[in-house]
Amino acid sequence: MADYAFGIDVGGTTVKCGLFSTKGELLDSWEIPTRKEDGGKYILGDIAEAIRKKCTEKELKKEDVLGVGIGVPGPVLEDGIVNNCVNLGWGVVDVKENLSKLLDDIPVEVGNDANVAALGEQWKGGGRGYKNVVLVTLGTGVGGGIIINGKIIPGSHGAGGEIGHIQVEKNETIPCNCGKKGCLEQYASATGVVRMAKRYLAKTKKATVLRDDETLSAKSIFDAAKANDAAAMEVVEQFGDRLGTALAAINCVVDPEVVVIGGGVSKAGQIILDVVQKYYIPAAFNACRNCLFKLAELGNEAGMYGAVRMVLTK
Amino acid sequence: MADYAFGIDVGGTTVKCGLFSTKGELLDSWEIPTRKEDGGKYILGDIAEAIRKKCTEKELKKEDVLGVGIGVPGPVLEDGIVNNCVNLGWGVVDVKENLSKLLDDIPVEVGNDANVAALGEQWKGGGRGYKNVVLVTLGTGVGGGIIINGKIIPGSHGAGGEIGHIQVEKNETIPCNCGKKGCLEQYASATGVVRMAKRYLAKTKKATVLRDDETLSAKSIFDAAKANDAAAMEVVEQFGDRLGTALAAINCVVDPEVVVIGGGVSKAGQIILDVVQKYYIPAAFNACRNCLFKLAELGNEAGMYGAVRMVLTK
Repeated sequence: MADYAFGIDVGGTTVKCGLFSTKGELLDSWEIPTRKEDGGKYILGDIAEAIRKKCTEKELKKEDVLGVGIGVPGPVLEDGIVNNCVNLGWGVVDVKENLSKLLDDIPVEVGNDANVAALGEQWKGGGRGYKNVVLVTLGTGVGGGIIINGKIIPGSHGAGGEIGHIQVEKNETIPCNCGKKGCLEQYASATGVVRMAKRYLAKTKKATVLRDDETLSAKSIFDAAKANDAAAMEVVEQFGDRLGTALAAINCVVDPEVVVIGGGVSKAGQIILDVVQKYYIPAAFNACRNCLFKLAELGNEAGMYGAVRMVLTK
Repeated sequence: MADYAFGIDVGGTTVKCGLFSTKGELLDSWEIPTRKEDGGKYILGDIAEAIRKKCTEKELKKEDVLGVGIGVPGPVLEDGIVNNCVNLGWGVVDVKENLSKLLDDIPVEVGNDANVAALGEQWKGGGRGYKNVVLVTLGTGVGGGIIINGKIIPGSHGAGGEIGHIQVEKNETIPCNCGKKGCLEQYASATGVVRMAKRYLAKTKKATVLRDDETLSAKSIFDAAKANDAAAMEVVEQFGDRLGTALAAINCVVDPEVVVIGGGVSKAGQIILDVVQKYYIPAAFNACRNCLFKLAELGNEAGMYGAVRMVLTK
């Protein structure tokens, strides 16, 4: 009986590894470094070795392992081929087949990291109990994942849930990392919030704690807003406007039960939900106006949980 | 052997009925009037009677019929309950259960009309051969349907694919039928195109055939644009900008293989695809920039085809 499965979350610096029971309990977790040298060619081998070592340590045989789920930071096509994973130095890599071969043909499921985190949050985190969930991850960039009927929408070109690149501003002058101008990511990510604050400070003389903050960050801006700093509150409103309006558009497409907001910026807590809903509600289509909004709960572990979930729901 | 199935498309004036083989051939089609009086309470009974008559005519027994699929012009929840179908005078109606009871427990599948038309186009129309399809229907309003892996995304509140109510303009002063301001429908529907043309004419003195057109319509505007009327071309550009940009956002969410454009406005033909792609491409996320764009092919029959398809893929 295959009572075990692995959930692997590949990041740019470390690979998070989890051993799960097929009932969904996390039994053990550990990390290995992500070796990006030589085009990232050691990464899958390192992961296979880590899994084999753990099997030896726990006395698991091949037939005890249902499969390995893996989330990677790049576009994943539906057949498990990763298409140009810049962060890892990968071009086109057939992760599903290559990793399975390295593991004596144990089945492997592959997903994009943001999509996989969304599945984790839907299963065990902020979206627990709902089957249709949109996850927004507000980190250095803005990522997302769409879960419908408990499954990831990966997209035909691996771009399902790439909501950070919805154009929300036609008059932006600075390009996004993707090359377009006016992407949601330019306003709602951690770096985007800082950028908006700097712009705002440059055109106002308002007294604000932000002006003397040499380590201005999304956290310091949200903290200042909570302390009623008027300039910080204005920046937070701009953030809420962009993200809330974008979510109203997203919900006209897939109409989830709940929107879950995660990533570093979401650590600001309730203020995020409040300001996003403030702008979401008037922009939302009537039928989905009462969509729920929740904070993510799994933090860094969402990816491991979602990765193993792909195996369990295959 | 159940070799037959029915596809029913309920409109505000007529109900289109189709008898199909389970291989997907349309064997017979006919229409009955939609009796909206008394809160639409005769509609399901009329449909059941039409189906029974056809079965008698064709000598089909209950066990010959796999099921009945039905598309209705209102929000449909996942359990087949229709929630406030204003066009038919319905409040909350359990269409799935009620129609099945009227038909001696033949299985019934229910969908929103725009979603069902999308499924029809994906199966047998402009999206044939693709499993992930976004349909945009440009009629009096703007409807849509999202098909992923050959299945409708109905949405948690029946609002899946309600892309006509994505807010595309923050500064609109006139409200949409839905009550919000700046919905895609206000610019990309047949009435929206006419509205944009009237606005444009009011603020320009440009010579244009549109100014003397007493029966100004989306068709006459697109015809004038094809004949190089500068004012009409400007209106068509505004149409393309709004719709192309909205589709770029939609594709960041669900990333289909193909966008199919249907409804009355789409009869203008290639000019629609050209102008929408002109604005789609610069606004699209890299990975989905080469999404295909096609015209719908099934016209008024898309609903019948999609309705029966729900039964065949159940």
